[in-house]
Parts: sequence; structure tokens; C-alpha cells
Amino acid sequence: MLIVPEREIADLMTRSAAFDAVEKVFAAMASGDAYNFPVIREAIGHADALYGFKGGFDRAGLTLGLKAGGYWPNNLDQHGIINHQSTVFLFDPDTGRVRAMVGGNLLTALRTAAASSVSIRHLARDDAKVIGMIGAGHQAKFQLRAALEQRDFEKVIGWNLHPEMLPNLEEVAAEAGLPFEAVELDGIREADVIISITSSFDAILMADQVSPGTHIACMGTDTKGKQEVDPALLARATVFTDEVAQSVSIGEAQHAVAAGLIAESDITQIGAVINGTHPGRASAEEITLFDGTGVGLQDLAVAAAVVDLAVQNGVAVEVDF
Amino acid sequence: MLIVPEREIADLMTRSAAFDAVEKVFAAMASGDAYNFPVIREAIGHADALYGFKGGFDRAGLTLGLKAGGYWPNNLDQHGIINHQSTVFLFDPDTGRVRAMVGGNLLTALRTAAASSVSIRHLARDDAKVIGMIGAGHQAKFQLRAALEQRDFEKVIGWNLHPEMLPNLEEVAAEAGLPFEAVELDGIREADVIISITSSFDAILMADQVSPGTHIACMGTDTKGKQEVDPALLARATVFTDEVAQSVSIGEAQHAVAAGLIAESDITQIGAVINGTHPGRASAEEITLFDGTGVGLQDLAVAAAVVDLAVQNGVAVEVDF
Repeated sequence: MLIVPEREIADLMTRSAAFDAVEKVFAAMASGDAYNFPVIREAIGHADALYGFKGGFDRAGLTLGLKAGGYWPNNLDQHGIINHQSTVFLFDPDTGRVRAMVGGNLLTALRTAAASSVSIRHLARDDAKVIGMIGAGHQAKFQLRAALEQRDFEKVIGWNLHPEMLPNLEEVAAEAGLPFEAVELDGIREADVIISITSSFDAILMADQVSPGTHIACMGTDTKGKQEVDPALLARATVFTDEVAQSVSIGEAQHAVAAGLIAESDITQIGAVINGTHPGRASAEEITLFDGTGVGLQDLAVAAAVVDLAVQNGVAVEVDF
Repeated sequence: MLIVPEREIADLMTRSAAFDAVEKVFAAMASGDAYNFPVIREAIGHADALYGFKGGFDRAGLTLGLKAGGYWPNNLDQHGIINHQSTVFLFDPDTGRVRAMVGGNLLTALRTAAASSVSIRHLARDDAKVIGMIGAGHQAKFQLRAALEQRDFEKVIGWNLHPEMLPNLEEVAAEAGLPFEAVELDGIREADVIISITSSFDAILMADQVSPGTHIACMGTDTKGKQEVDPALLARATVFTDEVAQSVSIGEAQHAVAAGLIAESDITQIGAVINGTHPGRASAEEITLFDGTGVGLQDLAVAAAVVDLAVQNGVAVEVDF
């Protein structure tokens, strides 16, 4: 079996490889070739940790396995390591033997960034010029970097509950040679593309703070109770997601569905747009909204890609298991 | 992190270490210190495989993780490896980092044997002399070997749907210097302790084929639909199990509960007997029945034990992950 340690991932994995892997597996999900298993997520009653497993099988890519790990809120303070800790395990679908173990921390950030990026590629207006960020934490930098590669953006604007973190966004904008402007939430109306990436439990962005023709990727809501935008925005928008079952239960759509504003049948898997079985954006005025909940197959897809890259680069550790 | 490959397990793990680990974690489950996560089990639609995860956390032993793997029915014929394939992954409960990866094939056999063995230690009559086996496959040998250490047995009797496999039992009996006798099912009445370990989907052993005072461990039923004994036997017996939730859903008790012959509240966790909060066997005439369904915590417990042994013996492979 092969091991790709966490420390190797940064040198191996590119945003482009993550994009391709995630786009491909979203397509496989929509065509019925790939599916996610039920998610296990447990508050284990120790170290305030949330721990669990996200598994799945991609029959097209022959990728089988799981991401295991979770959130240890005291890690940084007490152990000097990041709070999100995860590891991906890949299995040989022909035999059930373990095939690879891959550090999952950076991969999780990259696959989450790739998801909003895939949604922008397939749903944003081609002439989008201004990208607006809601949230300016560590993960926001990944989302923004990946998003900037999808359109000829000319400006980055952003809002964060704690404005002292906005330099995170400014830094990424500067890398791309773009100006950055801090705005109030009303100022987000200027954006053609919006990414929300917060850990909020209440709506931040209201429906009337989004202009016609905008594409918005809601990436922060991955748990029951979390919320980033006004449910009325989902009623106003055409809603896409990675997986409908997660969207209505733990994703941003949970609130609009619970309020009766939209139905499960109103939500389209982004893979259908990638496959061409759904036309995607219908007009320059339509608001498209991608509810990115994060599925296990994304993790498996990027892990499988990085294993291939590690083998090509001779850095995979081989263990006779 | 540490790796203990499958090939090392046989030299490291003893029946006694497996027994201690399983007894301890059953006790922790009953005292509320350890719990199993919901089981994921998926027919993946490839190679006829069943694949999934059994996870849990033992707060007392600080063992966190999962067993991943399943059943690949064509492995032996097509790949020359055993059909059951599994791997155990242990995590540090303080940080969420992966701590160890352990081959799970032999461990699964040993922990399953340890479970019936624990039930015999705590529930069989002290003067049990005859042990009866229903089933004579590969796993039956593990069950019998472990069971023979629990009482001063004088004879092994056994039945199998395919009698040509009975020499498996005779071989283990001979190892222990005991006579073996093949019997019809009616002949099982002679047994003081019975272990059923089959993959049956219909009752094999009828209630009137079990004598008063017998302890029976039903070890084969771990899936909805499987069945080894007459549901009336569970009504006649005092029923114990590893985990009540599994017993009534995927264990032997599923049928007696569905038929209204017993209630979930009639079933006692074996850990309560180990802890002394349940008195166990009430009389020399009582029939005790252990419904062994197999829980993830058993796998984690024996894996944690084998990691310790591997470190002591200097055979754990250390990988800088």
C-alpha cells in the first residue's frame, strides 16, 4: 500500500488537479456512477471533538474509501496543530484491500475551494468582473484563489464579521494583481460572483443584497443549524448543489426547505450541468446559487489524484501491508 | 504513526490478549464509557462486494477509530486472498491524528472468538463438560479453540450442514486432547455449551434441542435476515448480547423481537454481567443465550492491544505521517 504524508501534499497537489478531480466526480454523481455513503459524525465527549467518516464509491473512477477525522477545537491552543484533522483511506474496489493512506488536511481545503470554483465555471456569467467574499478566514483564501482562475475578475470586495481578518483577502487579491475593497454587506450588491465561507449560525447576507445575474456559492453550511444567507435568497435563486440529500438536511437549503420556500425537487445537482443534462444558467439576470455541503467523494477524488501524482514524483511511501 | 501489517498479527496476538481486550470493552460499553457509532454497510455494486465502517470510542481505554472493509465474495477464486478483508485505523482522541493502521483480518476472527469465549466465562455453568458446535467452517475453529479454554470440557460434539467440514472441529478437539463426535441436531441436547457459527438465513437449532442449563452463544447472525436458532429458544432463554441495538436489528434477537416473543428490554448487555451489575446465570437449569453481533469497539480493542504488543516486540512499522 502507498502512503502520502500530509507534508507532501502542498508540493504535489495543484488547484487545477483538484478542480479536475472534483468536477469529474460531481459529474459521476449526477450520472449515477458515484455515490456517497451516509455520513457518520459524532460528538465523542472527549476534547470537545467532532469525529466521523465520509465515505463513498466512484464506479467510474474506481475510487472507494473514506475520509476519517473531524474537528478538535483545542488543537491549536493545546497542541500547536490545526483544529481540523483528517486522513483519507483508499481501498481497492476489486479486493477490499487498503490501497493508500493520504493526509487529508490540505486536501480538504483544496477540494472545498475546487467545489465553489467548479460552480463558478459552470454557473457564473462569463462577463463577471467583481467577486465578493463573505468571510475572510483561512479557508476563504483557498476559495478566493481558486475562484479567481475562473473568470477575468477585475476587483475583489469582501466583508467579514471581524474586519481585522480582511487582509487575508487583500493578500490573495494582490497575488492576482487585483484591487481589494472592504465593504458593508449592502456593498456586496456590486459583486457578480459571491462566495460565502463562514461558520455562521444565522443569515448574514439578505436576499436584497444580491444583484440580478449574480452567482453565489454558499460554502460554509455543512451542519444542521448553520446558516449563511437569507432563505428568501434561495427562493429567488436557481439552486444547485453537490448532493441534494445533504443540501436539504445539513446544507444552506435546509432553512428554505424547512420554511417551505423551496422544495427538494427545486434543487439541481451541479453534476447535471457539468454533464449537460441541465442547461445551467438560463439568463444574464438569473441568480444562481450553489449550496456546497462537502461530500466524501470529493475527498476521495482529490486523494486518488494526489496518490497518482505522488507515484509519478516518486514520493509515495510504499509499505508492505 | 504506527503500522502493524496483517502478516505480523499471528505472531503477536494471543487468544488471551484478545479475550482481555474484548471483556474490558464490553464492560466499558455497559458502564457507559464506550460506545459504537452507527454502522455503515453498503452493497457497492462492484465485485458483489459489501463494504463499510464500524467505528466507536472507548473513553476508558482512550481508543478511537474504525474498522473499514467488508466482504468480497470472489476474492479467493479470483485473487487468491480471503473474502473478508478489513483494516483497523486508530486515532489519537486528544488530537484527531491517525495513530495506527492495523491489519484486521485475523483480528476479526480472534475478536469474534473472544466474544463467545467471554460469554462462556461469565454465563456457562462451571461444571460444563460437553461443548456442541453448530457450524464447522474456518471461523468455527477459532470459536472452539477459544471456548475450550473456559471450562474443563471433556468432549466436543458438532453438526454442520456439510458434514465433510466436520474434521475442522475434530482437529481442534484433538489439539486439546478431546474426543469429537459428529451428531444430528437432536444430539446437541447433550451439550452444556453450544456455539452456533454459520451463515444461515433460517433457524437451524430448535428450542427443544437445547437442554436446561445450557449456555448458547449465537455468533453467526450479524445482518438483517440471517438466523441460526428457533425464535422460541430466545423466549425460553435469558438473553444477553454485546449491544442491544444491534441484537434487535441485525442479531439473532431480531426474529424473536419481530415475532413479539421477547422485548428489547428483555435483553441484557453482557458487560453488565462482567461489571457485576447483573448477576448473570440465575440457576443450574436456566438457559442463557448470548447474541454476539460483533461491534466496532471489539475491533478497536484488539487492534489497540496488538499495537502495544507490536511496539513491545519492535515490529511496528513507524511512518512519519
